[in-house]
Amino acid sequence: MDVVRNMKISTYLVLFVVALFCIPSLAMAFEPNVDPLPSWNEGSAKNAILSFVANVTNKSNPDYVETEERIATFDNDGTLWCEYPDYVQSRFMFDRVKDMAPEHPEWNDTQPFSSILSGERFYASNFSTKEVMQIYVTTSSNLTADEYMSLARNWLNRSKNPHFGFPYTKCIYKPMLELLSYLRYEGFKTYIVTGGDEDFVRAFSDEVYGIPPEQVIGSAIKLQFIENNSSCSVMKLPEILVIDDGQEKAKEIQLNIGRRPIFAYGNSEGDIPMLQFTTGGNRQGLGLLNHHDDPIREYAYDNGSAVGRLDKGFEIAGEWGWQVVSMKNDWKYIF
Amino acid sequence: MDVVRNMKISTYLVLFVVALFCIPSLAMAFEPNVDPLPSWNEGSAKNAILSFVANVTNKSNPDYVETEERIATFDNDGTLWCEYPDYVQSRFMFDRVKDMAPEHPEWNDTQPFSSILSGERFYASNFSTKEVMQIYVTTSSNLTADEYMSLARNWLNRSKNPHFGFPYTKCIYKPMLELLSYLRYEGFKTYIVTGGDEDFVRAFSDEVYGIPPEQVIGSAIKLQFIENNSSCSVMKLPEILVIDDGQEKAKEIQLNIGRRPIFAYGNSEGDIPMLQFTTGGNRQGLGLLNHHDDPIREYAYDNGSAVGRLDKGFEIAGEWGWQVVSMKNDWKYIF
Repeated sequence: MDVVRNMKISTYLVLFVVALFCIPSLAMAFEPNVDPLPSWNEGSAKNAILSFVANVTNKSNPDYVETEERIATFDNDGTLWCEYPDYVQSRFMFDRVKDMAPEHPEWNDTQPFSSILSGERFYASNFSTKEVMQIYVTTSSNLTADEYMSLARNWLNRSKNPHFGFPYTKCIYKPMLELLSYLRYEGFKTYIVTGGDEDFVRAFSDEVYGIPPEQVIGSAIKLQFIENNSSCSVMKLPEILVIDDGQEKAKEIQLNIGRRPIFAYGNSEGDIPMLQFTTGGNRQGLGLLNHHDDPIREYAYDNGSAVGRLDKGFEIAGEWGWQVVSMKNDWKYIF
Repeated sequence: MDVVRNMKISTYLVLFVVALFCIPSLAMAFEPNVDPLPSWNEGSAKNAILSFVANVTNKSNPDYVETEERIATFDNDGTLWCEYPDYVQSRFMFDRVKDMAPEHPEWNDTQPFSSILSGERFYASNFSTKEVMQIYVTTSSNLTADEYMSLARNWLNRSKNPHFGFPYTKCIYKPMLELLSYLRYEGFKTYIVTGGDEDFVRAFSDEVYGIPPEQVIGSAIKLQFIENNSSCSVMKLPEILVIDDGQEKAKEIQLNIGRRPIFAYGNSEGDIPMLQFTTGGNRQGLGLLNHHDDPIREYAYDNGSAVGRLDKGFEIAGEWGWQVVSMKNDWKYIF
């Protein structure tokens, strides 16, 4: 009888191990004590996220949303990674100007390039919008997307945020990484909708955020089709196709995704139309805005700043039912 | 001892059943006798597909491609569903003109609308490209994407292909449905890249092809952002944003997906740049073109026809290593 009982025990043991091996996700789903957002302090922002996700994933809740319609869109600069005191892509563009300068001796006497080379003007905010666009198309064109992405990747590998002293791809907000993972685990498809160049963000989005290139929507340069002896490529032209900011974000979401998100997260005025599009439909949607109010652990800025203006966000968040997230109070950790 | 032996047998039996239950996909993958393309006759086209998929999914093969990079793009009209003697979307647009006519008495005397209403000109090919574009923007604008898609869905539910006598959404090629399923099963992400309006195709793509809206890339109308008392939408303007045909297909793939496909399937001149972009890179890629050569079961057309010109396809298929699929000989069933 001992033999039989041992066999029984071993049968159940093996079954249990096999089941654990085969269905780890189910095993996790049944674990009620795991906090999916451990870097978030308890409070209205965290509660709003948790209860929204609980509602839209619960089939018996009136706000239930089918898995394939759970679209979540995130701004990048200032929402997922640090944007202060200058956008990371600006640092990349300015370094590209320096790298390209030997082939452009005329830049020593031509604005806006000469002030980048002389160091006279250092931040993107020291240049007019028209100048920034000129720098953008000059440093991003006459390349294939692959060539451009590999330049961006190389630059990211060797560059550091001067304030924090570590690579830009480590200046990622830990609470946001947890949020991305949590939403994906709950069946959401996570997108980046960025004012930055979409190929610049695609160069690191999968590795850093787990967001593949096809789920990155952003600003873009016009392309040219090139065919040559059984080879073919598309080249970037020195001309802007779209600057994906403000109302363009909502329009690009419709064009690229073809449906309204139910979750949107940004941090500045340029993200407001995306949040409006997300929460201004017939269905329950959640909108959130990061408020950079932590001068000790990161930066404090909102209005009147070169980046991340949030005046209008504060003004209409209540009316539209959005959460303003205090990075100082709502986040246990920043990085 | 019999008891012990029975326990052993039952242990393995239970383990086997549990394993089958937990990992059905693996169980299927190990089934060597299932033909994934039963509607395809044996021949070079079927062989090319099967051996390409076998190579790119085999880790020890030099042509192996990581799952996330297995992008497959398909034209819609004439590739996935019947396009002859007129594009389905043209039939929709012409019926929209009739539905909208009571609010536009001036159309009785205004071309191109008057000839649609009088029946004087019946097919899209009876109109100039400029006229077709005018009909397209007139019948597709001043609507939100949701409103437009629901008009398209209603129309598809009540309309039939006059030749075959069944709904347009049943005039889908069975061999292509098998191919889509097979590729997805092998880890491919399947996209539609269509010259048709992307929202028109999104109205049925998920239900009919299993392709969600965000994997449909197509022609599009410009959008306008509209905000009104805590509600928000994007409206279609009477202006074209992009006609996704020819070289635009390759460019739109780069813009929307951000990487080169490894598999592309079309049927006309407008698909050639998509195939070139797919097979003209550094990596192994497969390109295929449907040849409509079956006048008994479907239609026979290729050159000099209003739709589906294939002159250049025949001319360069060999040089670029593409398969021309004879619908008459390579397909056991059409629908």
